[in-house]
Amino acid sequence: MKLLEEKILSCGTVLPGNILKVDSFLNHQLDVSLLSELGKEFYRLFADCNVTRILTVEASGIPIACFAAQHFNVPVVFAKKGHHKNIGNDVYTAEVFSFTKGTSYTIFVSKKYINPGDNILVIDDFLANGQAVLGLKKIIEDAGANLMGVGIAIEKGFQNGGKEIRAQGVNLRSLAIVDSMTDDSISFRSDD
Amino acid sequence: MKLLEEKILSCGTVLPGNILKVDSFLNHQLDVSLLSELGKEFYRLFADCNVTRILTVEASGIPIACFAAQHFNVPVVFAKKGHHKNIGNDVYTAEVFSFTKGTSYTIFVSKKYINPGDNILVIDDFLANGQAVLGLKKIIEDAGANLMGVGIAIEKGFQNGGKEIRAQGVNLRSLAIVDSMTDDSISFRSDD
Repeated sequence: MKLLEEKILSCGTVLPGNILKVDSFLNHQLDVSLLSELGKEFYRLFADCNVTRILTVEASGIPIACFAAQHFNVPVVFAKKGHHKNIGNDVYTAEVFSFTKGTSYTIFVSKKYINPGDNILVIDDFLANGQAVLGLKKIIEDAGANLMGVGIAIEKGFQNGGKEIRAQGVNLRSLAIVDSMTDDSISFRSDD
Repeated sequence: MKLLEEKILSCGTVLPGNILKVDSFLNHQLDVSLLSELGKEFYRLFADCNVTRILTVEASGIPIACFAAQHFNVPVVFAKKGHHKNIGNDVYTAEVFSFTKGTSYTIFVSKKYINPGDNILVIDDFLANGQAVLGLKKIIEDAGANLMGVGIAIEKGFQNGGKEIRAQGVNLRSLAIVDSMTDDSISFRSDD
């Protein structure tokens, strides 16, 4: 998606450790009009998937999921991280290893908010090693729901997540795929 | 706001420990069309405040802040909780005590995303003891920005946060104020 690639080029910063810092518009400060366009694009890509719920994970997946949901006219459910007192025990869980933080964490979704037979679209801001998406996929399978697709804003194409998830037959679409990045250049995979 | 009060009455549950569980539409599963209406209502209430940025805290404040921002046409910044590797040291911080969890946590905002002179509207889903809002207020003051108002979806009027924050002269508006609740009834404060 040209609009997103241009935003990454003009506002993104590459930091040591393969970090692409886009916190000026995607995951700390939010450029709401851009994110709204991303939501619209996800609707274009997945409109024929008969989506009944959008699933994301807190926190930075939430805004894009919400803007997409405005078009699909379905609820968003966001998986929570770690332990929360109020959530109750009736939850689906998955362990997610974060390469950025070097630790695992638990994500969970109340069993009330994914039903067997639900057609789920997963939305997230970033895909690198794909651990969060694989955790959400496990939760969807545990619930007996259907994973209709995965929509990602920025995929790090030089890490393994995208390859692994596509190899599992998942309909994964990323709006911008970074194929390589250095201190002074970022290059994107061309649209197929 | 009638729409929100009706939703609380039809979908909210009162749990022991003064917990009002609204996770079917506000903070786990998200009723996007309702939250979009809340965003619109915040615009109506604060449209003349010359807002330049909306500030909230992860995670459940984000969706309402984003839907409000669509009308204000300004960026959202969400304060993060705890320690993140990628955030850098150049942050404003505040300590927030959570009565629900019985512990304190740190919230932080990158100094890049609040400027001196910014006119900030704070938005959050819940107000009880007001600790999160007071933390955001400290961050705004540390940044030399102006707190133009605070918009809350659900205020627990029987806890102290609202009273304390209003006593500090803050323009606090809550879309639904729960004055009392028991297992089988929830009553709201009338609009003034």
